[in-house]
Amino acid sequence: MCPLRAGAAPECRARGCWAPGTGLLLLAYLAYLVLGAGVFQALEGRAAQDFGRSFQRDKWELLENFTCLDRPALDLLIRDIIQAYKDGAHLLDNTTSMGRWEFMGSFFFSVSTITTIGYGNLSPQTVAARLFCIFFALVGIPLNLVVLNRLGDFMLQGVHRCAHRLGGGRQDPAKARWLAGSGTLLSGLLLFLLLPPLLFSHMEGWSYLESFYFAFVTLSTVGFGDFVIEEEAEAQRGKAICQRLHSETQILSCLAPE
Amino acid sequence: MCPLRAGAAPECRARGCWAPGTGLLLLAYLAYLVLGAGVFQALEGRAAQDFGRSFQRDKWELLENFTCLDRPALDLLIRDIIQAYKDGAHLLDNTTSMGRWEFMGSFFFSVSTITTIGYGNLSPQTVAARLFCIFFALVGIPLNLVVLNRLGDFMLQGVHRCAHRLGGGRQDPAKARWLAGSGTLLSGLLLFLLLPPLLFSHMEGWSYLESFYFAFVTLSTVGFGDFVIEEEAEAQRGKAICQRLHSETQILSCLAPE
Ligand SMILES: [K+]
Ligand SMILES: [K+]
Repeated sequence: MCPLRAGAAPECRARGCWAPGTGLLLLAYLAYLVLGAGVFQALEGRAAQDFGRSFQRDKWELLENFTCLDRPALDLLIRDIIQAYKDGAHLLDNTTSMGRWEFMGSFFFSVSTITTIGYGNLSPQTVAARLFCIFFALVGIPLNLVVLNRLGDFMLQGVHRCAHRLGGGRQDPAKARWLAGSGTLLSGLLLFLLLPPLLFSHMEGWSYLESFYFAFVTLSTVGFGDFVIEEEAEAQRGKAICQRLHSETQILSCLAPE
Repeated sequence: MCPLRAGAAPECRARGCWAPGTGLLLLAYLAYLVLGAGVFQALEGRAAQDFGRSFQRDKWELLENFTCLDRPALDLLIRDIIQAYKDGAHLLDNTTSMGRWEFMGSFFFSVSTITTIGYGNLSPQTVAARLFCIFFALVGIPLNLVVLNRLGDFMLQGVHRCAHRLGGGRQDPAKARWLAGSGTLLSGLLLFLLLPPLLFSHMEGWSYLESFYFAFVTLSTVGFGDFVIEEEAEAQRGKAICQRLHSETQILSCLAPE
């Protein structure tokens, strides 16, 4: 129905038929996804398999050590713990505080919703909160786009002014545009992708690559939620590291020759 | 510096000063976020508190029942289980299969990455996979946008043709545009937001509201990952429900008067 030549595209658009490039594009899309799936499977499958095996071994060891705990009881416990983890309850201490749905947590959740990052370390569990979340996102996502757009304009103006000042003498429009473009790219990369990881790695004790991965996953609004900035959890981890270092230095000082 | 009247906006843009609306906009943005945080805290905080309390109670009961298990051992177990859960290992059976990083899982992960939904039920744990993920997303996200754009054009053409055929006799451009607009909105809503939940609720055993919430969270590319379509987990759940129903009917048939 649709002639297979590139020149036919406007004609096709007018008649509303399936553009000839669309099939190819979809094919490329699918191929790209299959490629990605294959690589991820190859890279992660082995590690996951190893991890699963070691977890099963630990589980059996635990069952042998704690003879009072049978397999159904352990499975039930695992199920409970995962549910509780999903619901964002504090698991590792006996406080029954407001959990992570305190104000800071709720604010962080609101930001992550309207930016469509959606880390998912917290997610609404009640019907009312889910309904509210839908309406909150319906208004919030466009509002967020408007704000980002405005801030982007503002940043662009800054870059243009800088470029204008730098290349003010020459007045070569092509060069000025090139300067502005590369300036925007460079300052954007520095400001949002290369510098923040330094801060994260300092704050959260991640490696630079982990922090860079977190920054990228956040900026692209993918937001897997495998890394999330969490004051409390990280404070606990920091405490644990301090304790370990403390005990290690004690051991070392015992071993050291006087 | 910047005159506080609306008419000054183009002037401001030329001079690159902070537009007068920007401060107000940021204030509204912040207020909206604070409002959201307050509501989420009110709606979810209580539920999370109740849940945390009941979880702690269960934990203490468990410790009392299984006297061989002391608190540090249980906390260690909880930590292990959560880590294993994050890493996507199979927890509830003794198979050490490829886990969820099999081909279907990896494909699903690839789709969720380039659409920036990022459910996060799976996330790369190895350095190589994380690096690949960054490059995969760098190419894949624009590719996904191109494909969605093309498909959107195609759907719009279809709607326009329908509107043209329906309002063909009248030739009133305003009416035709209104018809096309409402047709697009209606068919889009039906096709993507109202019908899929019926399928999800049938497939996954969720309520319609849960399924609608899932569809909304997916379409808005927020992707919390609290609901994810999972064949295997759901197959297991289905089996468990069947078993329960089976044993319940057995009990009922025993109790029933002959
Ligand atoms: K997302
Ligand atoms: K997400």
